[in-house]
Amino acid sequence: MNQEQLFRNIVAKRSFLCVGLDTEIEKIPVFLLNSKDPVFEFNKRIIDATASYAVAYKPNIAFYECYGINGWISLKLTLDYIKEKHPDVFVIADAKRGDIGNTSKMYAKSFFENLSFDAVTVAPYMGEDSVTPFLSYRDKWVILLALTSNIGADNFQYHNQDGVRLFEKVLTVSQKWGTTDNLMYVVGATRAEMLKEIREIVPGHFLLVPGVGAQGGSLKEVASYGMTDKCGLLVNSSRGIIFADNTEKFDKVAGEKAKEIQSEMEQYLSERKLI
Amino acid sequence: MNQEQLFRNIVAKRSFLCVGLDTEIEKIPVFLLNSKDPVFEFNKRIIDATASYAVAYKPNIAFYECYGINGWISLKLTLDYIKEKHPDVFVIADAKRGDIGNTSKMYAKSFFENLSFDAVTVAPYMGEDSVTPFLSYRDKWVILLALTSNIGADNFQYHNQDGVRLFEKVLTVSQKWGTTDNLMYVVGATRAEMLKEIREIVPGHFLLVPGVGAQGGSLKEVASYGMTDKCGLLVNSSRGIIFADNTEKFDKVAGEKAKEIQSEMEQYLSERKLI
Repeated sequence: MNQEQLFRNIVAKRSFLCVGLDTEIEKIPVFLLNSKDPVFEFNKRIIDATASYAVAYKPNIAFYECYGINGWISLKLTLDYIKEKHPDVFVIADAKRGDIGNTSKMYAKSFFENLSFDAVTVAPYMGEDSVTPFLSYRDKWVILLALTSNIGADNFQYHNQDGVRLFEKVLTVSQKWGTTDNLMYVVGATRAEMLKEIREIVPGHFLLVPGVGAQGGSLKEVASYGMTDKCGLLVNSSRGIIFADNTEKFDKVAGEKAKEIQSEMEQYLSERKLI
Repeated sequence: MNQEQLFRNIVAKRSFLCVGLDTEIEKIPVFLLNSKDPVFEFNKRIIDATASYAVAYKPNIAFYECYGINGWISLKLTLDYIKEKHPDVFVIADAKRGDIGNTSKMYAKSFFENLSFDAVTVAPYMGEDSVTPFLSYRDKWVILLALTSNIGADNFQYHNQDGVRLFEKVLTVSQKWGTTDNLMYVVGATRAEMLKEIREIVPGHFLLVPGVGAQGGSLKEVASYGMTDKCGLLVNSSRGIIFADNTEKFDKVAGEKAKEIQSEMEQYLSERKLI
């Protein structure tokens, strides 16, 4: 998928919502625990209930890897299900990988060949040769960590050389490695006030914005400071949608929560005259 | 395993060699491809041939993840085999993970509970809450990326605020999160000349040093600048040992290569009067 196709999906659904599939077995409704693969069963129902309001899904790989081989089976089933039932949806492996060149190549193979993800999140610490192997796939994306939503972002991401903070250097330097059709950046919603400055460095790239909802970020501020004329935003919500209810109607409630966010997003898209 | 136990193993084997199990199916001797699990079969023979000369093994997770579910099966079999046959050996998951706190907790569960690794490599970009969940396990280790061996290390790791480069800040700040009994650092052998400065910041921590062999680093320089009175070094070699030969005697040749390196290490340990 390229940027134009992603934008068309956003316009069609009047939404730039990404639903985070961070599925913890301890939080799944009890009645699902008897099914053959509770994690997949949960995801399937969440996906069907929210697909009208979401343009993207983002399983965080940690939540699958921690169940070992069974987790990888659930992940693959989830991917295959999305690609079969909702082929227009953009699917992100939130994996935060990154290693020396020949190793990153292996990770790219995992997520883009064995699993049919559209994008993978990558940590920038190891630099160019750890990122570029992911960029050699047509219509696949790297989403590079820039300014993250967690408290630990303060430790190193603001390290400042002559007025250039580390996350700004990451944005500036990495732009040469990819294009607006294969490179996005992670910017936490908890740092919404920074989006204005970030947009001066990366005016045309999509941003993946986690941290709305449970982590406390404001969607209104994110839209106000971050939106471009191609929308340029994918805003993620995980726990606030998928674990909003844990009874037999968990999927219905998840759908309602997703619809609420979509409605707010529709308003911002409309104010910006993109729909 | 704590630092003292690791040091005792180094003294007993007169070696600080870590063998990287970066097993690519394309490079495995052809005659093994008919076995039920060629990757595990290869690893098993490499381990048996090198275990007298190595104190640690380091599978890079990318090389297993890229084979999907089968890869995770091979990895688990390899781990179980090492822990059963060579229980004194230190086993490192070279995973370079790191995510927000509740997600890093899941990764810690993967590597320390589901798989019985002794240590996991972690990327520092997301800061304290992405690292500390791994440090809450007794006798388990974080090996934090500081100065990596690849060319891309130049992009961000030298970002310099008031004379403090990013990798130095990582070393300084992260020391408060762990101890010399649960925190090591990755410093590439290709940066051996930096080890002297690094030792001023972290005089007591073990360093995991990749990049000797295929990547061109010098073992002599690493030992000269990096060794402490508890050795303080695990030097990794992967391709130079495991793919030194691809005939039926690949394991014998791997053992000889490991022995060569061990002999050189013995000399440096002896010069330092640690054995």
